[in-house]
Amino acid sequence: VELALNRASDVPLYRQVVEQLGELIRSGVLATGSRLPTIRALADTTGLTRLTIQNAYLELGALGYIESHVGRGTFVAARTVPAITIRDSDALPPVSWTTQGILADLLSEPTEGISFARAMPDPASYPLRALQGMLREATEDPVLLGYGPVGGDPLLREGVSRVLLERGVVAPPEAILITNGAMNAIDLTFRTLAQRGDVIFVEQPTYPGALEAAARQGLRVVGLPLDDEGVRMADLESHLVRHQPRFLYLVPTYQNPMGICYSTPRRAQLLALARTHGLTIIEDDIYGLLPFERAAPPPLKAGDTDARVIYLSSFSKSFIPGLRLGMVTAPVAVLADIARTKQHSDLNSSPLLQRALALYLRRGHLGAHLAAVRALYRERCAAMQDALARYLPHCTWTEPEGGLTLWLTLPHGIDEAVVYREALHEGVGVARGQVFYPQPQAEGHLRLSYGAVSPALIEKGIGILGRVVAAHLRRRDALADRARREALPLM
Amino acid sequence: VELALNRASDVPLYRQVVEQLGELIRSGVLATGSRLPTIRALADTTGLTRLTIQNAYLELGALGYIESHVGRGTFVAARTVPAITIRDSDALPPVSWTTQGILADLLSEPTEGISFARAMPDPASYPLRALQGMLREATEDPVLLGYGPVGGDPLLREGVSRVLLERGVVAPPEAILITNGAMNAIDLTFRTLAQRGDVIFVEQPTYPGALEAAARQGLRVVGLPLDDEGVRMADLESHLVRHQPRFLYLVPTYQNPMGICYSTPRRAQLLALARTHGLTIIEDDIYGLLPFERAAPPPLKAGDTDARVIYLSSFSKSFIPGLRLGMVTAPVAVLADIARTKQHSDLNSSPLLQRALALYLRRGHLGAHLAAVRALYRERCAAMQDALARYLPHCTWTEPEGGLTLWLTLPHGIDEAVVYREALHEGVGVARGQVFYPQPQAEGHLRLSYGAVSPALIEKGIGILGRVVAAHLRRRDALADRARREALPLM
Repeated sequence: VELALNRASDVPLYRQVVEQLGELIRSGVLATGSRLPTIRALADTTGLTRLTIQNAYLELGALGYIESHVGRGTFVAARTVPAITIRDSDALPPVSWTTQGILADLLSEPTEGISFARAMPDPASYPLRALQGMLREATEDPVLLGYGPVGGDPLLREGVSRVLLERGVVAPPEAILITNGAMNAIDLTFRTLAQRGDVIFVEQPTYPGALEAAARQGLRVVGLPLDDEGVRMADLESHLVRHQPRFLYLVPTYQNPMGICYSTPRRAQLLALARTHGLTIIEDDIYGLLPFERAAPPPLKAGDTDARVIYLSSFSKSFIPGLRLGMVTAPVAVLADIARTKQHSDLNSSPLLQRALALYLRRGHLGAHLAAVRALYRERCAAMQDALARYLPHCTWTEPEGGLTLWLTLPHGIDEAVVYREALHEGVGVARGQVFYPQPQAEGHLRLSYGAVSPALIEKGIGILGRVVAAHLRRRDALADRARREALPLM
Repeated sequence: VELALNRASDVPLYRQVVEQLGELIRSGVLATGSRLPTIRALADTTGLTRLTIQNAYLELGALGYIESHVGRGTFVAARTVPAITIRDSDALPPVSWTTQGILADLLSEPTEGISFARAMPDPASYPLRALQGMLREATEDPVLLGYGPVGGDPLLREGVSRVLLERGVVAPPEAILITNGAMNAIDLTFRTLAQRGDVIFVEQPTYPGALEAAARQGLRVVGLPLDDEGVRMADLESHLVRHQPRFLYLVPTYQNPMGICYSTPRRAQLLALARTHGLTIIEDDIYGLLPFERAAPPPLKAGDTDARVIYLSSFSKSFIPGLRLGMVTAPVAVLADIARTKQHSDLNSSPLLQRALALYLRRGHLGAHLAAVRALYRERCAAMQDALARYLPHCTWTEPEGGLTLWLTLPHGIDEAVVYREALHEGVGVARGQVFYPQPQAEGHLRLSYGAVSPALIEKGIGILGRVVAAHLRRRDALADRARREALPLM
């Protein structure tokens, strides 16, 4: 155990020990059951007093990180990590990648370099001057500096209602709850509809934020594999027979991470199944305003004649993430319940930011903004696919018709973790496929986001990624070759 | 049952029926066990089709509001409201006043008139021009329009660290998590530290948001009565023997709703007890920056040598509620866990608003702002007490040395619900005492907030409240008198 202690820090030394040992345990460097040094030994190594080490061990014990057994020593305690071998249809709490200290790692971006890691809009697209004007106008009203209505600014709810109508969704302003982005809408909806131990269904792969919210809430998750048209109906039906899920969470339009778009027949099948089985669907339409050419298909909610669909979205991908504004609409009584969860988690989203966005929508600026960014993302997605065809010919990838991400499948035998780390070392950030699955899995995937990267840098970054993968392919083939040559026939 | 149906509305008629019947049930107008009209009868009364009513009843049934028994009819289902008679020391889920549709009522303000209902700062105190300048500056940095760090804007965490130092709390920026106001800090901390069914301790009376967060999370709550110096240690110790609370939630400085301030000996006793019993204390210091004259005592956190205290606060009372910004600091491993809950509930608070506040703090404007509002609130609190002495001589009230609220106790036999409703009718809003208790209770209290009301309107509003109470006193005395005169001696 090596600790980096800073005696000049404001943080007491014992807390530095707690923090650093905790991190080593969380990250798995110190595995469950490993023996920690004795208090005396660690005091000697670090030059700290035994009392300091003892206090640190006491706190780590209180936090559940370590266990002391008199006469035997101190050991890393078992954490609640599920076993690696899992039957596909088991409903288990998802591995919490952040609790494991892995999510940050999986989404790490180079501090300088090219990042395809995060599904970001292009920062150059943010209409700064317009936003400044709207914020200035909003601050003129002192009411907007006070507490606002739980449901949201009435003017923004009106504006969102009009935006939804363009997606084919009829939701009057009073049926809309404003949230802090889609993540908040997901967390509030999950919290309201499900309790610890309940089973929920998600796509596999899916948005890691939804998996983490579920993990945090103690929900059990069944992942449903996707084909080109969406979740496979046969899987869904067989799981429905086995489980009583509280809901099915879907991103049907320009799905995150795969970038696929559910076909119209699959959407109809899902609605019919929801009606038959009394299944609630939570539809996340966060990318629905970002089709490239062909208009996006109407969301499930547009055909939801039986009030089975809860629909949520956000302005983080289509406009500005930093406003932290999203929305949810649901059948009246359910929405009232979600609103109460919102009230008791943070009262309401900032009335000031809500009004600024409301003014932007009311003045009809969003249409022109969307037209501009759609053209931008279409061009960038095409540039990425073109570069992939040249630099990663042994891989396969999805061909999105909208949204911000595509899904790359590495050749068999190439470890995504190694590719990820080496690419990062070369200055190229990607998102590891693992983070999008509720349980550990062995396939090699990367999610690549093109929205915030210029075509020239896409060309350069994919080129670097191609060289990293090519080097691994050469090594894999050389190893296979050697194995063939050295294998002795059994006689 | 009378329903107000709007055929011109975008909301389908069956949903209007669902919404309105749901509201009548939630608010208790339709009590548990009451029989609903038959489908045919309600169709006749409303002029709607039987199918519409049937659909509405089906949805109400699915939502758990009503139950149908073949051959007997349709009845309002039992809701999970605990019985009224409760032993003081029982740990029960608090009555969720919002779920019961009561909280909104308890805090209702007259649309025109004078409101003492909400603990609001004075809107005239908001430094609009300065805020506009800071927002403009913040928007110039496109990074602040993207996603920010989960923990918060580093510049704001630095600024908050300096503000805390003035309260005697040493918390380096990395030990601070920025939240959407104190409500968000409370919800995140409760969620991270406790699970459904766990027992927590709170003051009684206490902040309703904390009670609602606990109710929402399925926590069981023990309320600890307060005396002039804080929670009574004997009660706390006896409850500690009986329960294993996950934590004790306190507002020790200018307590909400009572306005009392814990004495220095009581603070020391609490810290000693926390050490002895391994008790975690969540200290809400939201009013700590608002002493009138005498400096506020240092928070418990300032003397927390054993890392037993989690400290949270907000800029909603001391600066501007509409920014929705607060903070929490805790021992390192606990804070990391709270930050993960934050990440999976809304990623992070708006980087834009965070930076605007950070710039305000960095330029040292907060000190002058606080000096001005403290003088204002001191004057208004004095004006309210002066008016109370003249108009409500039969009541008692607390005498705060800071903060935004005082606590009025009505004379015996006066119903706070009636006083509340009549005052509202006369254009004066007050907060009913009931909402600050985890369980129904019979005493009559009002919380009066003076921060946002001018001395002239305080005089007028308390005058009206005085006439309402005086009229009830006369009726009470007349009734008692008649009872005495009419009572026959038992011979």
